[in-house]
Formats: sequence, C-alpha cells, structure tokens
Amino acid sequence: MKHQAIIERAIQANNERKFFAQYPEHPKAYGDEGMAKAQDFYKNIEGNKFSELLQSGENAWGGEEVSPYTQKELNIQYPLYSVETLIGKASAAQNSWRKKTVEERADILIDALENIKNRFFDIAIATQHTTGQSFMMSFQASGPHANDRALEAVAQGYASISSYPNNVTWEKPMGKFNITLNKKFVAVPKGIGLVIGCSTFPVWNTLPGLFADLITGNATIVKPHPKAILPIAIAIAEMQKAFQNAGVDVNTVQLAADVSEHLITKELCENPSVKLIDYTGGSAFGNYVESLQGKTVFTEKAGVNSVIIDSAKNLDDVFSNLAFSVSLYSGQMCTAPQNFFIPEKIKNGDVEITFEEAVEKFKAAVQAISTNPKMAAGTLGAIQNEVTLNRVLNISKVGGKVELASIRVANEEFPEARTCSPSIIVCDAADKGVYEQELFGPIVLLIKTKNTDQSISLAKEMCANHGAITCAAYTTDENMAAKIEDEMSQVFAPVSMNLTGFIWVNQHAGFSDFHVTGGNPAGNATFTNADFVNRRFVWVGHRKMQ
Amino acid sequence: MKHQAIIERAIQANNERKFFAQYPEHPKAYGDEGMAKAQDFYKNIEGNKFSELLQSGENAWGGEEVSPYTQKELNIQYPLYSVETLIGKASAAQNSWRKKTVEERADILIDALENIKNRFFDIAIATQHTTGQSFMMSFQASGPHANDRALEAVAQGYASISSYPNNVTWEKPMGKFNITLNKKFVAVPKGIGLVIGCSTFPVWNTLPGLFADLITGNATIVKPHPKAILPIAIAIAEMQKAFQNAGVDVNTVQLAADVSEHLITKELCENPSVKLIDYTGGSAFGNYVESLQGKTVFTEKAGVNSVIIDSAKNLDDVFSNLAFSVSLYSGQMCTAPQNFFIPEKIKNGDVEITFEEAVEKFKAAVQAISTNPKMAAGTLGAIQNEVTLNRVLNISKVGGKVELASIRVANEEFPEARTCSPSIIVCDAADKGVYEQELFGPIVLLIKTKNTDQSISLAKEMCANHGAITCAAYTTDENMAAKIEDEMSQVFAPVSMNLTGFIWVNQHAGFSDFHVTGGNPAGNATFTNADFVNRRFVWVGHRKMQ
Repeated sequence: MKHQAIIERAIQANNERKFFAQYPEHPKAYGDEGMAKAQDFYKNIEGNKFSELLQSGENAWGGEEVSPYTQKELNIQYPLYSVETLIGKASAAQNSWRKKTVEERADILIDALENIKNRFFDIAIATQHTTGQSFMMSFQASGPHANDRALEAVAQGYASISSYPNNVTWEKPMGKFNITLNKKFVAVPKGIGLVIGCSTFPVWNTLPGLFADLITGNATIVKPHPKAILPIAIAIAEMQKAFQNAGVDVNTVQLAADVSEHLITKELCENPSVKLIDYTGGSAFGNYVESLQGKTVFTEKAGVNSVIIDSAKNLDDVFSNLAFSVSLYSGQMCTAPQNFFIPEKIKNGDVEITFEEAVEKFKAAVQAISTNPKMAAGTLGAIQNEVTLNRVLNISKVGGKVELASIRVANEEFPEARTCSPSIIVCDAADKGVYEQELFGPIVLLIKTKNTDQSISLAKEMCANHGAITCAAYTTDENMAAKIEDEMSQVFAPVSMNLTGFIWVNQHAGFSDFHVTGGNPAGNATFTNADFVNRRFVWVGHRKMQ
Repeated sequence: MKHQAIIERAIQANNERKFFAQYPEHPKAYGDEGMAKAQDFYKNIEGNKFSELLQSGENAWGGEEVSPYTQKELNIQYPLYSVETLIGKASAAQNSWRKKTVEERADILIDALENIKNRFFDIAIATQHTTGQSFMMSFQASGPHANDRALEAVAQGYASISSYPNNVTWEKPMGKFNITLNKKFVAVPKGIGLVIGCSTFPVWNTLPGLFADLITGNATIVKPHPKAILPIAIAIAEMQKAFQNAGVDVNTVQLAADVSEHLITKELCENPSVKLIDYTGGSAFGNYVESLQGKTVFTEKAGVNSVIIDSAKNLDDVFSNLAFSVSLYSGQMCTAPQNFFIPEKIKNGDVEITFEEAVEKFKAAVQAISTNPKMAAGTLGAIQNEVTLNRVLNISKVGGKVELASIRVANEEFPEARTCSPSIIVCDAADKGVYEQELFGPIVLLIKTKNTDQSISLAKEMCANHGAITCAAYTTDENMAAKIEDEMSQVFAPVSMNLTGFIWVNQHAGFSDFHVTGGNPAGNATFTNADFVNRRFVWVGHRKMQ
C-alpha cells in the first residue's frame, strides 16, 4: 500500500487526539510561486468556462457567483447536468468503485488529496472571492484544514473497515467433532452519496462527507451552493484526475452545479438511488433532509453559540480573545459565539466589576480590531451575501439596545468590499425573543443575568431548543468550571474554557476536536468520529460450509 | 476492574469473529439441580404475583399470558406503572448511572449477567410456556445465547468508549511557542432508552439493546410483549438485584408490563425523555417507530427469507438440512427460510433432476421430521399464538398449490400443545402475489424458476422490497457461489452457502455473525457491530487553557 505510512499516522493521531497536521497550515510550506500562479489562474478563469472537469454529458452551462470583495459577477460558467445523467453515471461508477479494496480506495483518495494540495493557492483565491473570507483564512480553511479533515475521514474509514477480518475459519466444538464454516465479512457501501455544500465554507464543509462516502465505497455527487462553486470545482477536478490516473471511473465523484432559476437539490435528495446525504446550511432545509425516509443523513445546521462569563484573572484578555472570535470572518463561522451571558457582577482578578463595565470593556475590544487599519479588513474579511449584510444594517429591528452599531470598514486592496464592523446589542435575560435565534453574521448579544447559574441555565436551554456547535466559558473557580462542563454536556455542547491569546473558540482542530456533536439541533453528525463513516456502509457476513 | 478478563476475551472474540461462548449453550454446564428447581419455581409462580422486582410505585397488577403447551392462562400478575412514574424514576436513575465510568458500568452489567445465569432454567421454562419454544431451544436462546449477545454489546460499548483517551494534553507548535490545551472527551449518553420486546424471543431480542443502552449510560425501560413477560421479568429482577448490590439505583432498568386493554408502548415511544428505542416485531409498528423524529431507533421487523437452490453434491442432505430449518420452532424464527427458489432442472451430484422431483424430496424430508414421534414435538415446539395457527389452517387462501397440508402433531408431555407440521405450497415464479409477503409460521413456498439467474433476481427483489434476515444457497459451482454472494450483498442479505448436517441457516452465532444487517427493510440495526452501541451516546470534547 503506497500511502500506508500516512494512513497509519492519521489513524494514530485520530485515536490519540493529539496535535497532527498532514498538511501544514501556513502557505509558506507550499512554495513561493503559488500565489502568483493563483492570481494568473483567477484572472484567466474570470468570465470563462470552467473546463477542468473530466465528467461529461452536460446539457447547459451556467454560473452566478459574485465576489464579496468586488461585488462583481465572476461570470464563470460551469457545466450543468440533468439529475438523470448524474445518477446514471454515478451508478455505473459505483459498480466498480465498490469492488476496490479499502486499501486501494485509501491510496487513490490520498493521491486525490495530494493533487488538491498542489492547487491550495488557486482554491484559496477562489474561496476568497466566493465566500468573502480573507486570503489567509481561505488558504487555511479550504486548503490544509479541509484536506486534514478529509484525511481524517479516510483514516477512520480505513480503520473501521479493517477492524474485522475479511475471512475467518469458524470452528464450533460439538463434543466429538467440530463444525467448520468459512466466514467472509464484506463492508457493503449503502449507495450513491450526495454532499450539499454551503456558501461560507464550500470546501471545508464538503470534503469530510465526500471522502467518508468514497472511502466506504459510495460514488458521490457534490451539489455546491450556486454562489460558491469554484473552490470545490477545482478540488473535484483534481480528484477526477487522480481517479483517471488510477484507472478509476472519473464519475466516482461528480460536480452537480446548478443555478437559482433551476435548483436540483431536492430532485437529487429524493432520487431513490441516493442513499447518503451530507448537508451544511440553514435549519429549514436541513430539517427537510433529516425527514427523508430511507436515507442516511449527516447534517450541520444553524445554532446559537453561547459564552458564559463567570470570572477571570484578567477580563481584558478575555474580551480581547472574544472580540477576535466575533470579528473573524465577520461572525460567519458556525462556531462563532453569539450570545454572551454576563452576570450583574463579575470578578475580574481581585476586584468585582458590573455588567455595564464589562459591556464597555467588550465594546472597546471590538473597536480595537475594527478601527485598526492594519487588522480590520484582514480579520473581518467580507460579508458573503446581501441577506447577512441587511441583517446587520437593520440591527435595530432585532430588539434590545443597540450598544454598538456596525460601521463600514475600508479595505485598501478591494475598495468595493462588502465589509463592516460587528454590532453589539445589550439585553436582559428576560428578553428571550431577542436572543433565541441565530443572527448569522457580525452580531453579538450581551445578555445580563442574575448570576452564573442563570447564565448556564439559559445557555443550556438555548442549546437544547436551537442547537449549538460551541460554548465558550470563563471562570477562575474549578467547581464552577466542572459544573459548566457537566451541564453543557447534557445538551451535547463542547465547552472551551478560559481561552485567551492565540487560540479561539471558533477553531476546531482536525484529528482532535470533533466538529458538531450530533446531539443537539445544530446537526445530527460530527466530524469525524467512527459513526461518521460507519453509517455509510453495512456489514454483511457470508458463511460457507467447508 | 473485577471482570477485566471477561471483557478482554469478549472484545478479542468480537474483533476476531471466531467461535467464543462465555456462556456454554448446553444445560449440563449449569448443574444438575436446575431443572427440578425451575419446575418448582414455575409451579409456584402460576396464578400468583411476580414480586421479585425491586422497582416500586405500581398502580395496578395485570397479566394475560397463555401457555402454547397447555393453552391455559398462566394467571401471573405483574405490577403495572404509569408512564409518568416510569419516566420519572428512569430520569432520576439516569442522573447517577451516567456518571459511572464505563469500567464501573461493565463490571456491574457482567454481575447482572452472572445473576441471570443462575436463573437460566427458570427463564427457560418461562420462555417455553410463553413462546412455545421447546425446552432446549428456550434454554439456549433465552439463556446462554442471549447472555452472550448481551456481553457482546457490553464489550463493544466498552471498546468504543475506551477508544479515545479521557484526557489529553494538546500542544500546537506555533513557531516560537506552543499553544497548550487540556482536552477532555466525554461519551455522553443520549437519554432514556426503551426496549420493546416480542412474543417469540422475549429475552434474546431484548438483552442486546438493553445492555447496549446500559453500557453507554442510558437508564432503560423494557416494555415486553403482553403475552411474553415472565422470561424477561426474571432477567430484569436479577439485574435489579445486581444494581442494588452495587449501590446503584434499581430503576436503572425497569420492567414496564402492560395489558391489551391499556397498551402503553406508543405513550412511551412518544415521551420526549425517551431518546433511544429498540424494537422487535411486525413491520407496521416498526415503521411507525422508525418515523419518530428526534429518536435514535434500532429495529428488527418482518422479512421474507429466500433459499436459492442451484446444484448440490447430494440434494437429500440439502433438503434434510432445510426441512429441519423450517420445522425448528415451527418456522417462528426471524431467520427461518420461507421462499425456496428452485429451477426447472437441478444438478444433484452427477445427475439432473426436475423441479417436481425436488419438491418430492423436500416433502419427504419435512415429513421425516413431522411424522417421527421422537423428533417432531421437540423440533416443532408449539405455535405461539392463534393468529399464526389460523394462517397455517387457512393455507389454501395463500394461493399456489397446497403440496402438503399441515397436520396436528402429538406432544406426549403436553397433550393440549398447539403443535402442527409445516405446510408446503408450490407456485410459479410469476406468482409474486403468493410469495411476496412474510407468512410467519410453519409455511414454506417452493417457487419454480427458469434458472438460477432468475432465482437470484427474484430473491434480490424480494429482499430489496420486503427485507430479509437470511439467505440460504446451494451450489457446487464456485462462480455461481461468488455471484450469489455478490448479488445478495447488494441488498444487504447474508448468504449461508451449502449448509448441511448440524448447522442451520437459522442460527446466528454471537461474537461472529451480525444479526440483521440493517441495510434492507427487515430492520435498520444489527446485533452487534460498532454502530449498535455508538449511536447510543455522543462524544463531547471539552478544552481548557492550561
């Protein structure tokens, strides 16, 4: 097995859950020429057809991406296919892909990741101009971090399928003689996979489900968000090249781009041959996907992430960390905190400060980023779409008191960038109507509670009813820390405790942090534990008399 | 850990899938006095209250079991509880049970299995007089086999939860410094479990889900079939004694008996605190259970099991084996074959025989059992209920040609036993209406096909549309054997090839054979692979700054 060493290191890292990066996160690790080449690539692709895919049979071309940095249409055209064509080709590909051993599939999929690696810069610039992420975040999230999470799925699938012997001689002692059977255990793929992408993390949220489907033998169709196709199109083209190179049907993975006037997602979901669906996006469509009978479904939907502030050694460090968390990519991460539960009195080192003083400190920390010309544009990135921007602009409609209104933030490189600073709303614990919904984007709610017990109780209630992917908490009291962890565990929310400095609640590390727990309404699946791959195939055991 | 050695042996057996039995299957292994004591126990419990349970708060007593051997009511009364009482007590128990380590839970659960072991004879006689199984099958299925499958679930749960470290120091190199976090991984139970039993295998089909719920920290309620309570009531009483002995809330497992005039299954299923449901029984109710939103559901429903006969060295050996398979417990096993696909011409050693000759051979093999006074009663057992009996008596309504009608079979020990011989119907491949439903009980359909390819195609279609738990096949052709396995794999049916002698397609061995694949309409779950326990808890990872 060509990539045995990589697989073994990845399995070990996954089991130990210590730091591991098969793909280092800094662009410097990938050579000096990547950036210039990527700029050329992007210049050439704008206004043109994306013709790198090896799949065929398109019936039209279309595309409607808009750069959040220039607010202009990219005018890139992608091949469009009928659902019938996509399913037919996937079924044919499936029939040979399923017969490969898990070792063969792992080798080919790691080749595919290595191919993708060579395009990290291209994918980064494509991600920047579709999602609005900064270049650096685009590079890391759509590049090494996505590849590592894909490798994690490959490693988990390899480990799961290898966990039982393929063949075994079974002997049952019967007293005077033995009964002997040859037993064969086959991990049979469930069928065709469908991975539905989102507009903010088109690669990071797509590769884990895609590679989990593939390592377990399911040919897969990727339906990207119509506003964020280019990054994943490059990745799929590179995967198809790896398949072709290995003599595998290139339709083992297909891009199924669509356009707003003719969306094909539901038609794909409801096709009887589609047995597996991975979905990232809003809760309404996610709930529809979860309700489909006869499908195995993995979702990541909306949630309201809480921050519980009880006490700290130094609240300025705390707010500085949290201000960065809410500013990073303008709060458009599924892991970004939204609801800050802060009691009337908070212990700050040896002194006690009031809720109102804490609000002032947080406001200052947010402004320190958004008014710093060296930091603001790079941290905030751009707002992916108009809906999110309008939510921020109409912040007064949310309720509560607008403590800090959003202002336009200048981006030197892209003067037309859709960029603005976070808004802050202050409200009371009683104002549930204000804070019990996801306000996607750069909007933060500071909620005044009687005490930390009330904060915990409200954070728990929000998570149980509306879901949560993260919970940040700050306390200097060991007992309170244990209580917060135990209480939030009951609603299946992971707690990040006392983070300050260069680590943020938003970041979930591959091979260590499960992403989404699957236990609350924010989603039913998690990157990447055993379930994330095991549910994609079925063990079938055959027995034969010797 | 007290039972470390047992757990380790069970994990190893589960991984290797070779023969293993923690609980030997023969009654002789459990001493000479058990049978006499069990007869006393049964004499004393008939017409009385079952008062061994340690749970409390009943609001009435009831029971309506009837012995298929005497056709008389047992008149045993069980405590009845309101759903509110059951849920309240389960919630309280859950809150301490979830805090035990997986090692502590495993030790207590193996104590519980050892307690149950001491009651194998009592459970056997209780099984016999509720299900109609013979004493020997009652002993094996409800005793050692059930305990082994429960241990298998405990071992798998222990292995899964131990697969990640509880605590880890995570260090991310940042160039000039490292970021260090303490990470803690908690396997959080999903909530209250509900296990819904069936009337034919009240212990074997209940213990795996029950022990899977418990090892993963979920307090569990067992809702037995109103006609088969006693066997599982004894098991639960013994489990409660083990819990009490370990200082654990006895309500960690509760018996929730009900009576036909006030069934509580749906009320339990729909209670918001019930998060996990295991169900064995008919497809209509199983489909309802699977459709419930917000529940994790494990089902075993109806199916139509096929036999594909292509060729054999000696067809008499084949039919002798299959005749036993359909006679054993009068075809009331979920693994019993129903549809026999036999081509116009079959190779029998060096000669070719016709379909009609094969029918004669099979008929003779069935009659050899049912007219043999030494074998008939012990093999057939008794028919569990009137519905099954009426299906057999009204066999002519099924369609096709009745080749062999059922006759009453005498049981010396129990003259009133509801026992009859298997009926055989012959029909053509075109008569799908005749054979495309489960005809639960001692009914066999011999279906004439053009050739084995048609047999495979029909067996596959039946399995895809109606489900199957087993598939038996006979061929002397290696290529045909591979084809049958590959084709039936696609509909997730395990194939038992060329079984003759003392091993039958009905038997699924613990620690080796997965039971039900979960991939076709016969059920969505399987005893016992990783999924069977992993879906009962959620990994939650907490991070803390050092």
